[in-house]
Amino acid sequence: MGLKAVFSGVALLMVGMVGSVAVQAADLPWTFQPLPAVAEAPKDNPSTKEKLALGKQLFFDARLSITGTHSCNSCHNLSAGGEDGRAQPVGVYGRTGKRGTQTIWNAAFHTVYNWDGSANTLEEQAQKHILDPNIMGMPDAEAVVGRINAIPGYRQQFEKIFGKEAVNFKTIAMALSSYERTLTTPNSPFDRYLRGDDKAISAAAKRGIQEFIDVRCASCHFWINLAGPIPGLALQQGEGFYELFPNYPGTDYETRYSLADDLGRVYFSQEPTDTRMWRMPSLRNIAITAPYFHNGVVKTLDEAVRVMAKTQLRREVTEQQVSDIVAFLNTLTGEFPEQTLPRLPETPNRTAVAGHDH
Amino acid sequence: MGLKAVFSGVALLMVGMVGSVAVQAADLPWTFQPLPAVAEAPKDNPSTKEKLALGKQLFFDARLSITGTHSCNSCHNLSAGGEDGRAQPVGVYGRTGKRGTQTIWNAAFHTVYNWDGSANTLEEQAQKHILDPNIMGMPDAEAVVGRINAIPGYRQQFEKIFGKEAVNFKTIAMALSSYERTLTTPNSPFDRYLRGDDKAISAAAKRGIQEFIDVRCASCHFWINLAGPIPGLALQQGEGFYELFPNYPGTDYETRYSLADDLGRVYFSQEPTDTRMWRMPSLRNIAITAPYFHNGVVKTLDEAVRVMAKTQLRREVTEQQVSDIVAFLNTLTGEFPEQTLPRLPETPNRTAVAGHDH
Repeated sequence: MGLKAVFSGVALLMVGMVGSVAVQAADLPWTFQPLPAVAEAPKDNPSTKEKLALGKQLFFDARLSITGTHSCNSCHNLSAGGEDGRAQPVGVYGRTGKRGTQTIWNAAFHTVYNWDGSANTLEEQAQKHILDPNIMGMPDAEAVVGRINAIPGYRQQFEKIFGKEAVNFKTIAMALSSYERTLTTPNSPFDRYLRGDDKAISAAAKRGIQEFIDVRCASCHFWINLAGPIPGLALQQGEGFYELFPNYPGTDYETRYSLADDLGRVYFSQEPTDTRMWRMPSLRNIAITAPYFHNGVVKTLDEAVRVMAKTQLRREVTEQQVSDIVAFLNTLTGEFPEQTLPRLPETPNRTAVAGHDH
Repeated sequence: MGLKAVFSGVALLMVGMVGSVAVQAADLPWTFQPLPAVAEAPKDNPSTKEKLALGKQLFFDARLSITGTHSCNSCHNLSAGGEDGRAQPVGVYGRTGKRGTQTIWNAAFHTVYNWDGSANTLEEQAQKHILDPNIMGMPDAEAVVGRINAIPGYRQQFEKIFGKEAVNFKTIAMALSSYERTLTTPNSPFDRYLRGDDKAISAAAKRGIQEFIDVRCASCHFWINLAGPIPGLALQQGEGFYELFPNYPGTDYETRYSLADDLGRVYFSQEPTDTRMWRMPSLRNIAITAPYFHNGVVKTLDEAVRVMAKTQLRREVTEQQVSDIVAFLNTLTGEFPEQTLPRLPETPNRTAVAGHDH
């Protein structure tokens, strides 16, 4: 399921409500909302302190990959923007993933996951990346469970937290996702501005907000995550908010940056109407997550703004507009909660990746 | 320069001093010393709070590798035993290093670095791994400096800390090494035993200490790091303590585990007498750093003990001896100081690894 053009129209209407007058912070909440510091946990995976601690260990544990070389944090780098700064991720055996790593920061506020919406939940996203032969490369769920079960410190934690279920592929994903839901970056300058601190952002950034709405970037990039609907608001978890990209085919940018080569969601859904449909990516922390787009071919944020204006909105933007919009986008970098490095449970006197370490 | 058989003889003599009677903690200091919590900084690279903070960022920064995928921590995993749990490290482009990753924990107490003593200091070791085509793959020092200089938050820190020198390949290594010198794991059960806590280790471990001395493991694995001389004590920084391995050639183990295929230090020094000479590895945290030996072919610690007894000391050890020695080795796992994950300086609106991200 998903919302496409219809929803976009609603958003345009909403933006229209505030777009006709000079934008004031007080007018913006219809379009934008401050990022909450805490994301709600789904009912079937409530958070506990113990589960978060376990999930954090798993997130940093390269033994979840076949070769013992790649943890979630290898690509979703929590020391930085929650991704890898690369066009394509490098997984096990030097293999590269097809599409750029998306940030794990604020991922809790999406209704579907991956560029093509091929995962309905954070839990499913984690499972798919663990089994992806180009990413973590585990052959099947059984192998993952076997790897974790062979580490006594994990087995004990799972038994304590999940009881009879103990270690299985579902509980592994549940623990991981619980931790991932804590990875939010509230209090960006923009959030402080939305809450009434007029001095939190520059005059250029304020002009940028107006341009962002006028050029109609905000038609899709709106609400908490600047990525449209959030779970429970306009869409339920598992329902996606997709857009056609490129929306106006045949631009020079399309050729230069190979923007139309990847047909997007259709490969996953096998629905012809999903051709070149993409899940709306968040703009939170966008200034520190270059390079841009699903293929990572665009290296700078100003060029990304030009490309989007032209290919999605058929708009030529002036360099002043680009500069102002980039100033606004730079206010979307939040505060990153300090992470202490977890200690990983040991396999005393032997290695956990024996047989896959050559 | 280096000590070989001569030094070993001295060590044997020292061990002999306590080896003839039942070992008591009070007798051990001649052979073993508790691990200090703090390692001394060399005079030409004094520690400061700012330098440590910078070094920690660099340690966790994958942008020190050509592809932006490998930080020091990728292989020297500080969530675990300071290495990667693999026989060989996986570097950039899926390439594998020839010899197993050695732990970075307590590395400050070595007089030379790498399996073959091919680096005289921690600083040199860092530089060599950054430029190793199979590890971090940077083409030359200039490229490393260019990469770091292009990150404003780094440039500012280097200018503040190193003044006119600012960012250069030497100051990068100095900052990294300053941080690495803080990575010590004091207060292992064995250290507490050495300090007089008789209950810190089991009866089996106590028997193991005696066996370890009697079988003559301690002839080479002695003092603070159970790796022989430490900087300023018997050897100066840059002077190595090497042993022949296998010492008794032609064992079944040698064939089974390909122990003699790699000729060790001779490849580096080109001195025929360095054939199959190896720098003494530390036994600190050995229980959590499987697999074992330079080629990582031995998967378990008990087998490593059997192999060492036979190939180095021409001793058949009983399963009871193996079990006791392993119990002792398990008391060498220290306390790991909590590490907070550093925030890495950004390159706003662009990627730092452009051109190397495909």
